[in-house]
Amino acid sequence: MPPTYRAAVLPAPGEPLRVVEVPAPVLQPGAALLRTLFSEVCGTDVHLAHGRLAGVPYPIIPGHVSVGVIAELRGPVRDVDGAPFREGDVAAFLDVHETCGACRACLVDKETTRCPHRKVYGITYGLADGLLGGWAEAIHLRPGVKLLRLPHGLSPETYIGGGCGLNTAFHAVERASIRLGDAVVVLGAGPVAQSVAAFAALSGASLVVAVGAPDDRLAMIRQMGADETLSIDRLSPEERLERVYALTARRGADVVIEAAGVPEAVVQGAALCRDGGTLVVAGQYTDNGPAVWNVHELLNRKHLTVKGCWGSDFSHFYKSIRLQARWQDRFPWSAIVTRRFGLDAANDALAAVERREVLKAAIDPSLGPTAASGAAGGERAADPQG
Amino acid sequence: MPPTYRAAVLPAPGEPLRVVEVPAPVLQPGAALLRTLFSEVCGTDVHLAHGRLAGVPYPIIPGHVSVGVIAELRGPVRDVDGAPFREGDVAAFLDVHETCGACRACLVDKETTRCPHRKVYGITYGLADGLLGGWAEAIHLRPGVKLLRLPHGLSPETYIGGGCGLNTAFHAVERASIRLGDAVVVLGAGPVAQSVAAFAALSGASLVVAVGAPDDRLAMIRQMGADETLSIDRLSPEERLERVYALTARRGADVVIEAAGVPEAVVQGAALCRDGGTLVVAGQYTDNGPAVWNVHELLNRKHLTVKGCWGSDFSHFYKSIRLQARWQDRFPWSAIVTRRFGLDAANDALAAVERREVLKAAIDPSLGPTAASGAAGGERAADPQG
Amino acid sequence: MPPTYRAAVLPAPGEPLRVVEVPAPVLQPGAALLRTLFSEVCGTDVHLAHGRLAGVPYPIIPGHVSVGVIAELRGPVRDVDGAPFREGDVAAFLDVHETCGACRACLVDKETTRCPHRKVYGITYGLADGLLGGWAEAIHLRPGVKLLRLPHGLSPETYIGGGCGLNTAFHAVERASIRLGDAVVVLGAGPVAQSVAAFAALSGASLVVAVGAPDDRLAMIRQMGADETLSIDRLSPEERLERVYALTARRGADVVIEAAGVPEAVVQGAALCRDGGTLVVAGQYTDNGPAVWNVHELLNRKHLTVKGCWGSDFSHFYKSIRLQARWQDRFPWSAIVTRRFGLDAANDALAAVERREVLKAAIDPSLGPTAASGAAGGERAADPQG
Amino acid sequence: MPPTYRAAVLPAPGEPLRVVEVPAPVLQPGAALLRTLFSEVCGTDVHLAHGRLAGVPYPIIPGHVSVGVIAELRGPVRDVDGAPFREGDVAAFLDVHETCGACRACLVDKETTRCPHRKVYGITYGLADGLLGGWAEAIHLRPGVKLLRLPHGLSPETYIGGGCGLNTAFHAVERASIRLGDAVVVLGAGPVAQSVAAFAALSGASLVVAVGAPDDRLAMIRQMGADETLSIDRLSPEERLERVYALTARRGADVVIEAAGVPEAVVQGAALCRDGGTLVVAGQYTDNGPAVWNVHELLNRKHLTVKGCWGSDFSHFYKSIRLQARWQDRFPWSAIVTRRFGLDAANDALAAVERREVLKAAIDPSLGPTAASGAAGGERAADPQG
Repeated sequence: MPPTYRAAVLPAPGEPLRVVEVPAPVLQPGAALLRTLFSEVCGTDVHLAHGRLAGVPYPIIPGHVSVGVIAELRGPVRDVDGAPFREGDVAAFLDVHETCGACRACLVDKETTRCPHRKVYGITYGLADGLLGGWAEAIHLRPGVKLLRLPHGLSPETYIGGGCGLNTAFHAVERASIRLGDAVVVLGAGPVAQSVAAFAALSGASLVVAVGAPDDRLAMIRQMGADETLSIDRLSPEERLERVYALTARRGADVVIEAAGVPEAVVQGAALCRDGGTLVVAGQYTDNGPAVWNVHELLNRKHLTVKGCWGSDFSHFYKSIRLQARWQDRFPWSAIVTRRFGLDAANDALAAVERREVLKAAIDPSLGPTAASGAAGGERAADPQG
Repeated sequence: MPPTYRAAVLPAPGEPLRVVEVPAPVLQPGAALLRTLFSEVCGTDVHLAHGRLAGVPYPIIPGHVSVGVIAELRGPVRDVDGAPFREGDVAAFLDVHETCGACRACLVDKETTRCPHRKVYGITYGLADGLLGGWAEAIHLRPGVKLLRLPHGLSPETYIGGGCGLNTAFHAVERASIRLGDAVVVLGAGPVAQSVAAFAALSGASLVVAVGAPDDRLAMIRQMGADETLSIDRLSPEERLERVYALTARRGADVVIEAAGVPEAVVQGAALCRDGGTLVVAGQYTDNGPAVWNVHELLNRKHLTVKGCWGSDFSHFYKSIRLQARWQDRFPWSAIVTRRFGLDAANDALAAVERREVLKAAIDPSLGPTAASGAAGGERAADPQG
Repeated sequence: MPPTYRAAVLPAPGEPLRVVEVPAPVLQPGAALLRTLFSEVCGTDVHLAHGRLAGVPYPIIPGHVSVGVIAELRGPVRDVDGAPFREGDVAAFLDVHETCGACRACLVDKETTRCPHRKVYGITYGLADGLLGGWAEAIHLRPGVKLLRLPHGLSPETYIGGGCGLNTAFHAVERASIRLGDAVVVLGAGPVAQSVAAFAALSGASLVVAVGAPDDRLAMIRQMGADETLSIDRLSPEERLERVYALTARRGADVVIEAAGVPEAVVQGAALCRDGGTLVVAGQYTDNGPAVWNVHELLNRKHLTVKGCWGSDFSHFYKSIRLQARWQDRFPWSAIVTRRFGLDAANDALAAVERREVLKAAIDPSLGPTAASGAAGGERAADPQG
Repeated sequence: MPPTYRAAVLPAPGEPLRVVEVPAPVLQPGAALLRTLFSEVCGTDVHLAHGRLAGVPYPIIPGHVSVGVIAELRGPVRDVDGAPFREGDVAAFLDVHETCGACRACLVDKETTRCPHRKVYGITYGLADGLLGGWAEAIHLRPGVKLLRLPHGLSPETYIGGGCGLNTAFHAVERASIRLGDAVVVLGAGPVAQSVAAFAALSGASLVVAVGAPDDRLAMIRQMGADETLSIDRLSPEERLERVYALTARRGADVVIEAAGVPEAVVQGAALCRDGGTLVVAGQYTDNGPAVWNVHELLNRKHLTVKGCWGSDFSHFYKSIRLQARWQDRFPWSAIVTRRFGLDAANDALAAVERREVLKAAIDPSLGPTAASGAAGGERAADPQG
């Protein structure tokens, strides 16, 4: 009889998760089984639980970004540099799978994050597909899933602190084409914005201003690379605009990266840009309705460049994880996950994220049913500057 | 006693133009006097007459783009290749003047079309400044005005058919970065859109679709390079979208260039783009209110690039005039000006443009007070394909 | 007993080809069998025959670019737009196969033409691998080979006239980033240069100058889009430089694309560029020794951009074949293949290409052993302008 | 009688400098007089003294990059942000002057560093033009010279440590388009290379390797941002190549910036790049003969991008000086000038630079005739990490 693994399953939108036993997969050649160390709980999971994402095949095991130990491998599986994986390796994987490599988006337009055939672990695979979500003791890595060993010196706790925000932020910063000396504004203070601030600072920004709330997230983002923070709780849009102009010799920001999620942030971002500046829109992952945009003043006359930024590909995963390993002493990614929850406490984890009690939570299947532990990267969090 | 020249003057918004005598300028070193052959009457002039442009110093001599014969030169004036101008040369000039070359926009950001010190002939110079508008027998070219001789073989009639739309369209097409084989949609069928179609076709577009009205403008734009036209009078936005998808293997356009002027065109343009496509916004020159934009669906998820495009600089003027000379047999620019008016008929010219009786009108100071003549490039218009 | 197909096999470098019977492949799911209509004979095949290419697994069936009729399909095989292929379709395929999609070049650097795992039909597959070269009655299209139906209206004769030069030229022109109005110089007059001229003209070049020999190729390239030709037989490098400067207001070319193959052409190309211009190096496919380059004068002080351009990917294949279909009446690709040879005359075909008796030859397996026929696109060649 | 100022004059190539009295200039409107604090002595001055630069109008006051105190202003002179300069301001200026703003290079190609009308203080202005070199008690800033106040907190000593290398390095790094996470190799360890290392590190390079000699310069460049250094005195080109491959998972560098000055460095740089990488050539400022380059292997097959990089413009000056002010505690620019010399010791200064006794020297007109003082930024040099 095959072994089974415990998994937290969301039966349908609005229903509580419950833990079930799921049979171990039969591994095809090129597949692997990952024993889960941590799986992220992020805002997308809250949307998932409320049924606000399209195309989710409930019941589902949530958890798109995870890290674990390779427990079993079927045949040689190699990394991008050709080195074989071995059982016992600590590894993460790109949650996006089945990018087809054969359609117009993949082959002609080279916009693989818009491949219509993409599947995402924990979001577009359901329980019927097996152990394809991270909130489980084990994850089935199908053939072709893109695995990466954590770079030397990068702990799983620190990795999961970056989590899905790491890729997303890297892609947004890449798309922003920040130039050495630029003044950059980040809209938002959630997990994606935190990594955007770090990557913007690393990219040569001379000034990084973060705009968001609440105060503890602003405090965190100052540790993550923001030189200044502007609270949306205490400052009006006009006051924030004035402050950014004051900081930029009355020009506006060279680059604004929106990672806030509310449509009006996009238009405010356009206003914060200098003439000829660049606005990257990376926070509108769900449909929160339209923005009302004066396209004469805040687009055409500004001679603005605006770039939507969707998803992320392997290059973003590969590079961002290396950057995290390289710069973990400068930016306290490990302190972003402030609470860990066992599988039985997955509903509490979701609630904590939704109530913004935590910046990010993680599922740790090794924890028992008695609620949550402290920070994933607890000991580091005490001294986040390392 | 200095000579005087007749000029059509707009005393104030909403008042009729009247012809006055304006003293000849005293030329400073580097200045020139141009005897006007044609000066354009375009949609901007209609806005000017209604007081819809900011910062216009009424009373004013309208006419920003013009062509004429150099009547007088003070000292050597050279072209961009170092060749001296001579009296008798037929020349046009960049209407934008006094780009400062010393501010952040000019020197650091290199966005000279956003230089705050720019002045524009016929728009931001008033009658008090002298003969600095084209609806006059002569135009005072101040020192530093950037003059170009018409290339060999290019008639003033053909040049004025392109007129200000030529620069603007060139800049928009440059900013679109059209790649060989792209499917391009042009929104609009006015003078700018006409040249956008031609330049898009020349840039390697495999398909150029123009969306606009009325039918005579659509007929014209088919001669100017559009492979297909979609009438906004007869097709709903949904039908236009369906048609573009049908023409692009259900992908959408690689590039959309908005030259329509209504805010909703911007959002429709976003919808017409393929995932990862490019939208250039070049038609929102006056404030016609906001666009309502679903930034999730039509920006972030589409992974779109949107570029506002403001004004034009000397490179656009220089290159577009050469392209016009090179390709005038393929694209009937001369047929865009369908009526010429004397100075005394300037009010009629404005009315004809406003009522869309003509695609574009020209002021020809040599015409007497008895209304308008036929096409500037009349004989060509009979056989616009040359 | 399985059927067999006749194939021309090159046993070893320097030995003559001979025709052998090769067993039909057993098709795996996703594979297909193509009945060959034409397979190209180009300069690369001459190098192959002389043993000047590295890594060729002799004995080999040459022929990397081919067109044929789908004779058999194993399971559904779909094109890039998802439409299934059917038996009887006339199709071509990208000769490059097994680009891995899993290495640093493919996934991180996104330079798939440098994937170390790539295989090329007719070049790096040998006879031991089966019918994996085009000089045969049939070609085995392994699973994953990227097939394209010829677009409506494009004949196999015209397609093979472009052949491998089409992709290569498209890639080189893409890499050149030609801008509307540019002056472009093409170095070379062989098959690649012919398509470079056409694609440069389509991309908006205002001037295309081709530099090469002999005269019949220069005559051909004038039909293919060159406005001017400069003979390397009759003009010294200095005279060619002078001529290009005379044509460009003494500035030099905005873009030079080298498709000549001799190392000194690269340095001459640098000299022909204007300051700040772009040189694409696309002709150095085999090692013909070093170029001697004054990097002060012809690189650093010129502020030049030089781009090597290797191979081509599916996007180049896809787009170039569509462009060829779209513009076949303007550019006489069909006239590039001036002689067809049966399999038994493959040695004659190679000799004709090597002696430059033909611009390009094609193998046509339907021809009997009695030497060659006329042009692949004979009737078109009589009136190449269509 | 007008005052005079002491200046070190180079009478002719190969002759020693001597100090002469030069009359103060009559300031035109927009002009200024700068009392010199420091003027740089760099490798270009050595070439100037030996007559190895073209177009130098001997006799000449050398010194192209300088910093001083504004002693006199004629009329309002404003900075790029519109703020007026005042007497007593400590300021530097762009040594390049008279970029015409009217030629093809300036206006159409927008490659202002290739404007043929440019003049350079201390290099292409001679003594006959007046106080237009920095090795003098005062410098005549003609109208239009682009001045910048030193940013708050940036000392003249630190500024001159960067000096002309700062602009040049910034331009080279800008042209390299370094992307977050790139592996960058800097060829050279002179003043330009020192700032290239710093700017590459600031631009998001995950690895900066410097290749040069002697050891004290390599020690310095490790403080300036290089993670690793490879000595050309102790390692063969093959060993250096092997080392770079070992550091880059056997791929080669994403970006190589040549600031070494010897032609073979360019070819070695090509070898050090990964396939599809970028090589910037910024060190070939004088003609040291040709490089012998296998353009098949090291350009075409590598699919390389190579960019020459000439001169610098105001944007590079403006941005680099701000970056220096921002990051002076991280990178010890002040320690680059290791000796200061009075005007009477200018020959000693040249000799020290030529003999590589110093990384860079500065002329300090306040010093008496008795030889040199210590480091310009002496107290900082003791603790260059701040």
